[in-house]
Amino acid sequence: MTSAPPAPRLLGSATGLSCRECGSAYEIGPLYACGECFGPLEVAYDFPTITRATIEAGPTNIWRYKDLLPVPSHVAETKTLNPGWTKLIRADNLAAELGMKRLWVKDDSGNPTHSFKDRVVAVALAAARELGFTVLACPSTGNLANAVAAAAARAGIKSVVMIPADLEQQKILTTAVYAGTLLAVEGNYDDVNRLASELAGEEEDWAFVNVNVRPYYAEGSKTLGYEVAEQLGWRIPPQTVIPIASGSQLTKVDKAYTEFAKLGLVEQTPYKIFGAQATGCSPVSVAFKDGRDFVAPVRPDTIAKSLAIGNPADGPYVLDVCRRTGGTVEDVSDDEVVEGMKLLARTEGIFGETAGGVTIATLRKLLATGQLDPDAETVVFNTGDGLKTLDAIAAHVGPTATIKPTMASYRSAGI
Amino acid sequence: MTSAPPAPRLLGSATGLSCRECGSAYEIGPLYACGECFGPLEVAYDFPTITRATIEAGPTNIWRYKDLLPVPSHVAETKTLNPGWTKLIRADNLAAELGMKRLWVKDDSGNPTHSFKDRVVAVALAAARELGFTVLACPSTGNLANAVAAAAARAGIKSVVMIPADLEQQKILTTAVYAGTLLAVEGNYDDVNRLASELAGEEEDWAFVNVNVRPYYAEGSKTLGYEVAEQLGWRIPPQTVIPIASGSQLTKVDKAYTEFAKLGLVEQTPYKIFGAQATGCSPVSVAFKDGRDFVAPVRPDTIAKSLAIGNPADGPYVLDVCRRTGGTVEDVSDDEVVEGMKLLARTEGIFGETAGGVTIATLRKLLATGQLDPDAETVVFNTGDGLKTLDAIAAHVGPTATIKPTMASYRSAGI
Ligand SMILES: Cc1ncc(COP(=O)(O)O)c(C=O)c1O
Ligand SMILES: Cc1ncc(COP(=O)(O)O)c(C=O)c1O
Ligand SMILES: [Zn+2]
Ligand SMILES: [Zn+2]
Repeated sequence: MTSAPPAPRLLGSATGLSCRECGSAYEIGPLYACGECFGPLEVAYDFPTITRATIEAGPTNIWRYKDLLPVPSHVAETKTLNPGWTKLIRADNLAAELGMKRLWVKDDSGNPTHSFKDRVVAVALAAARELGFTVLACPSTGNLANAVAAAAARAGIKSVVMIPADLEQQKILTTAVYAGTLLAVEGNYDDVNRLASELAGEEEDWAFVNVNVRPYYAEGSKTLGYEVAEQLGWRIPPQTVIPIASGSQLTKVDKAYTEFAKLGLVEQTPYKIFGAQATGCSPVSVAFKDGRDFVAPVRPDTIAKSLAIGNPADGPYVLDVCRRTGGTVEDVSDDEVVEGMKLLARTEGIFGETAGGVTIATLRKLLATGQLDPDAETVVFNTGDGLKTLDAIAAHVGPTATIKPTMASYRSAGI
Repeated sequence: MTSAPPAPRLLGSATGLSCRECGSAYEIGPLYACGECFGPLEVAYDFPTITRATIEAGPTNIWRYKDLLPVPSHVAETKTLNPGWTKLIRADNLAAELGMKRLWVKDDSGNPTHSFKDRVVAVALAAARELGFTVLACPSTGNLANAVAAAAARAGIKSVVMIPADLEQQKILTTAVYAGTLLAVEGNYDDVNRLASELAGEEEDWAFVNVNVRPYYAEGSKTLGYEVAEQLGWRIPPQTVIPIASGSQLTKVDKAYTEFAKLGLVEQTPYKIFGAQATGCSPVSVAFKDGRDFVAPVRPDTIAKSLAIGNPADGPYVLDVCRRTGGTVEDVSDDEVVEGMKLLARTEGIFGETAGGVTIATLRKLLATGQLDPDAETVVFNTGDGLKTLDAIAAHVGPTATIKPTMASYRSAGI
């Protein structure tokens, strides 16, 4: 009288893809745009019963949430970099300086290649392997290139990373060291991107993480939201400040909070999501302030290079999320970004990259302008590592004093 | 009939200091050399009953071992960077290339400032605060400078870091960003060190982590050994390969294994400890091969700058440990160091610093020369991050090909 158990699904609880615009449904596969309306596709799920206990018994990395991701159920046994479960740091010193009551920094610089990109790449890799791809690829200028090359090396599969040929040598080194294929393309990032799209159409075995397997890739950002809620003791923080490049991460953190509440893992409490951009690339912030629901593309000019996407694919959805939750989107100047980096380092000993400078400086501006409540508990994201963006602070920090190697010289320096 | 509970100790289970050479005993305090024989002092303990369960219930950082360290029992509630509990990574790809059966990489680049120095500094800081010091200080050229400046920022105490004035700008930035006092000293590292020792004698409130509180500081390295054993499922690995600068870390890992066995936390199984140096600074390796029990100082000349201590304080104790356990000490050329870094990155997606290149290359050499058993389970340490030593690989890795942004150019590149 018992029915046969359901056949195991290719990608865990994922049941298919659905269009974010028109709702058209598709089977799991290497699709990313709706055949009806060209809208972006998103993974659809049929979640099993998930308890805090099963999650807590899982590994201390993103695979503790595997039942909520489009990955095979044996994913934790495959060779990945096991990103995630980074520190949520109670930031009392910073809170005191900002006049806040309770502040946390979600510090994703602790990931294997030191940015949140390890999360999305790990999920893309796991899905891509199941879908039959044999090469992991991407166009990138930085964090993503590192993450793809490292993840592929660990997995023992081929990678192809495409970069503008004039990229800083430092960024070339940190990808080239993993010894995948690294293509330097004579052109700007748009040229690289265009070539990548052409290649994605021709090379059937290549999973471009941020192109043809983007729906799976994007789901990886949900783990940031899951972790924050779990690390707070299974609660959604009233306020969260998140950086925006394409806008995907911000929308996925919102999705994570919503899913956790729907699944009964946390109480459904009100929360506000705030978006952070650098003024030199602030199309979403501008649209928010103008009250528009579309985002006009801009040409980026900011030191926050990891956030410099002038035409953010998820911009409209970011506007939705921030408006629906009662948050806002704000932007800060490059000087403020540097001040933000220095403030975080000085108060908490956390050296974040420019993207972290953007969120910290935005937090400060949101407070100064009364957009964010200093008395409500707040989580601010640092999504990358200061070691990767040293140029940004080069002109702004240095030795306190230069002395001769004698006690007399030391004493006269007045330290 | 019950006796009064013992008074809580200042530094947990630590009962005093004892001379490693003559055994003279001292009270807990800011001492580091024996008044009788000038031998180095080491922390002595009276350990309580410690079970696997209590450790497993602790935080996922070095404070899970607080009962085994010279720190106050409330240390986990104080403001530290909470280093440790870094990944022990099963390295099957690397094992296959080396013809080994079972290999693990203990990847300490995952620490807050991306080297194992966060461990020793955290313990030094905790002890220094209890001993009444108000300033955390050090002479350093790299990893230690980062770790001290960051830890002090987080703790909200003053730091004074002393560096040679001609240090690479990159290393200056990664310390200066935390905004402690950074003294650039016109001279070489020996000059800096000498001034630091003079200052340590004059400034009563300054804890120089690697000088006047060195006995406490050094104990922090034990946590590497504890973690390896616990992460293996409470077992001592038969073979461990460890880098040598002063030699402290290696001797403390041996101490950690011994303590765990004595406390009944692991079975007392035989193990061999292997030391790794760069040939350009290999005084311990040379002494080992010569069958000497003293170490003749050398002038360092190697790209592995974090290991470049020409007169290693713990050299003789390293010789003891490696001989007693049946291990050896080996050294590798700078070219081999680079090959080691590349090998680890290519096979496991781990970008270690030059010190990691030293251990990986040494592992390979130990195998090639029959000194290490390929069939016995082995742990090799990567104690720092490749992002900090990019210069070392700059001439050795780069793009696979440079192409124009066209499909035709891509095709003719023969990727
Ligand atoms: C460090 C860092 N933070 C945040 C982001 C924003 O990601 P998203 O494109 O999902 O908005 C990026 C994107 O590249 C990044 O590199
Ligand atoms: C990255 C790294 N690994 C290993 C060591 C070796 O430490 P020890 O002096 O304890 O031998 C150092 C010391 O500075 C280091 O910076
Ligand atoms: Zn559609
Ligand atoms: Zn003595």
